[in-house]
Amino acid sequence: MKILLILLDGVGDRPSKVLNGLTPLQAARIPFLNGLAREGANGLMDPVSPGIPVGSDTGHLAILGYDPYKYYPGRGPFEALGAGIRLKPGDVAFRCNFATVSGDTKVVDRRAGRISSQEAAQLVEALSEVKEVDGVEVILKHTVEHRSVLVLRGEVSDKITDVDPHKDNLDFVWPKPTDETREAKWTAEALTKLLRRYREILEAHPVNIKRREAGLPTANMLLPRGAGMMPSLPPLSVRFGVKGAVIAGAALYKGVCSSAGMDVVEAPGATGTLNTDLNSKFKTAFETLRNYDFVFLHIKGTDTAAHDKDPLTKASFLEKIDAWFTKNFNPPGAEFIICVTGDHTTSSLSGEHRGDPVPVLIWGYGVRIDPVDRFNEVDAARGALGRIKGTDLMNILMDLANKTEKFGE
Amino acid sequence: MKILLILLDGVGDRPSKVLNGLTPLQAARIPFLNGLAREGANGLMDPVSPGIPVGSDTGHLAILGYDPYKYYPGRGPFEALGAGIRLKPGDVAFRCNFATVSGDTKVVDRRAGRISSQEAAQLVEALSEVKEVDGVEVILKHTVEHRSVLVLRGEVSDKITDVDPHKDNLDFVWPKPTDETREAKWTAEALTKLLRRYREILEAHPVNIKRREAGLPTANMLLPRGAGMMPSLPPLSVRFGVKGAVIAGAALYKGVCSSAGMDVVEAPGATGTLNTDLNSKFKTAFETLRNYDFVFLHIKGTDTAAHDKDPLTKASFLEKIDAWFTKNFNPPGAEFIICVTGDHTTSSLSGEHRGDPVPVLIWGYGVRIDPVDRFNEVDAARGALGRIKGTDLMNILMDLANKTEKFGE
Repeated sequence: MKILLILLDGVGDRPSKVLNGLTPLQAARIPFLNGLAREGANGLMDPVSPGIPVGSDTGHLAILGYDPYKYYPGRGPFEALGAGIRLKPGDVAFRCNFATVSGDTKVVDRRAGRISSQEAAQLVEALSEVKEVDGVEVILKHTVEHRSVLVLRGEVSDKITDVDPHKDNLDFVWPKPTDETREAKWTAEALTKLLRRYREILEAHPVNIKRREAGLPTANMLLPRGAGMMPSLPPLSVRFGVKGAVIAGAALYKGVCSSAGMDVVEAPGATGTLNTDLNSKFKTAFETLRNYDFVFLHIKGTDTAAHDKDPLTKASFLEKIDAWFTKNFNPPGAEFIICVTGDHTTSSLSGEHRGDPVPVLIWGYGVRIDPVDRFNEVDAARGALGRIKGTDLMNILMDLANKTEKFGE
Repeated sequence: MKILLILLDGVGDRPSKVLNGLTPLQAARIPFLNGLAREGANGLMDPVSPGIPVGSDTGHLAILGYDPYKYYPGRGPFEALGAGIRLKPGDVAFRCNFATVSGDTKVVDRRAGRISSQEAAQLVEALSEVKEVDGVEVILKHTVEHRSVLVLRGEVSDKITDVDPHKDNLDFVWPKPTDETREAKWTAEALTKLLRRYREILEAHPVNIKRREAGLPTANMLLPRGAGMMPSLPPLSVRFGVKGAVIAGAALYKGVCSSAGMDVVEAPGATGTLNTDLNSKFKTAFETLRNYDFVFLHIKGTDTAAHDKDPLTKASFLEKIDAWFTKNFNPPGAEFIICVTGDHTTSSLSGEHRGDPVPVLIWGYGVRIDPVDRFNEVDAARGALGRIKGTDLMNILMDLANKTEKFGE
């Protein structure tokens, strides 16, 4: 049995005036997806719980079957995954800001005058020369503007305080352990040593010398916060005995799936935006299905359009997806299942993630066929799946493939 | 108020080609059940959780309102219930194999050359002479071929190791306590003494003498495994103040219901197979309703047909059930409720229990009436019950009978 899960990021929506009171899914011409709905089982899915909006990180954890209330380690590790760092279980990750510090510890500007991405990248490059401190491996990666992520690898703990005071004109405090373990004490000490070393490098760096001469705030300190330890996610191969792969544009989705033991397959031209090469992603997905039991295909554009409060673009992006399948769909065998759903609702009204459920459709071998004949947030509610939770989805799909273990006899 | 719960074992299914893409429930002519659906409330039920296949044991625990994650004691006790032993709370039960042991402890063949049921039954009869060891009551019952169940009753514990090494050509280890309690130590000692006594009886038994002469592996040792302690299930009478009875062919269902404080009523000709005497079971059920508030009627044939991957027989068995009711149904009064559902899906495609939800219908006094007019896995999803869990069912039924207690004031 082969399973293709098409994850349309933020696909759920609310009705818009510009779409005559319809959601983008309701308004779009999507004959292929509607056909799958007609020949399959439909329902609604709450990523976590009704009315609770989720992030891309917690939403994806849930949909891959990992209860985010148990497995979500906070922002640090997922920011690192999003930056393309392949985390190992036990790694401790922090979100970091470049900041302007006056005297020893007074944070004058915790964004260093919103230093440019280009300058910050140069600083991170210099800091990255420090690859180890007190036997702890150090990985630092720039993301955007004043932001970066720091990863400590070794006998480390996430039980340490934030260095970032979260407000300007406060003193930062060097990292302190928040529990009694040896690892927390070591981590706090190693991080302190690292940040002092960083400060020396930053004060002397040409970028800062130039900024000082220009009267701009210097980025002379790195302020970590939100320490989180990457959890060990039981891999798909162990949970269900299947071989899984992910195809995605953005690093976060590759990272989460990779942490779940899936292989990352690159599709040329996958950008994680509205201008992604859909043809390349879909072709790669069907090619990947030859060698894998389960392929997770992530499409980001739906979410992007809704964040831009642009339901028309969201609808037309859905039509582009549908058109590819209408033209090219060719099931890779009789025992094949497609699931189409989203990780959360992104409202085109507010441009934010919201807690409305998303539609879910499952089509293929052994799937019950219900009377629903359109794929959208409203019609799906009358389907044979009822209203499920994100953490149910993988169990349902793997059960259709006879890959779940019986509880009892 | 009188309630009849008709439990069609493994009634849920997946669409079959031989039924033109329908499930057996969708394909069968079942005017009576469809009529109940039309005049009642319908929904889907997950015995435990979406996508999780359950056994008959865990499924029945859940549907009787006992969370199997809390109450399921493992295989031993339910094997004993299935063998017709009426367990008491605190009894410790084991699954056992007759095995061939060479020297003191080397297990040469842990199935004793797959000794015949007839020979094994003779051996168990001889061993059953031992009714007590160190003040612990002993019950041994043969099931099939080399298999039997052993029950220890008294101040015993299930915290002891398996004697069965689970593989041939390994040494077995005499039972050891796995916790520090006095009961575990005593149980291990008593079981060791019992198994040594068994071995003496087995070595000298005519069946083994004959096998030895014929060059066959002797069944000279009994290997227990999977110790489990029968939990104390709060009885229906205490939970809801009702008097319940069970009618079933197979011992397991009688055993589980009996453990829940229900009386076992025998229906002549109830076999727990496709050739059961349905007329006898249904007549007995309605007679039993005269003296009981709640009757649990278990019908096994639906499950049997699906295990045989025979959706046509499953559909025609459903038609037989329906035909009896069409001809004979006569509600025993105005205040009467019928519930029809299953304990799990058994897929006619794979012949296995699977995790798809089962339909549930409730008909009768005080029940809301929804637009669903057919009893099957797909139509049920549009009903007034939505998608419920197995552990919800008894509360819903007892609440219709005004037998639940208010939470709060």
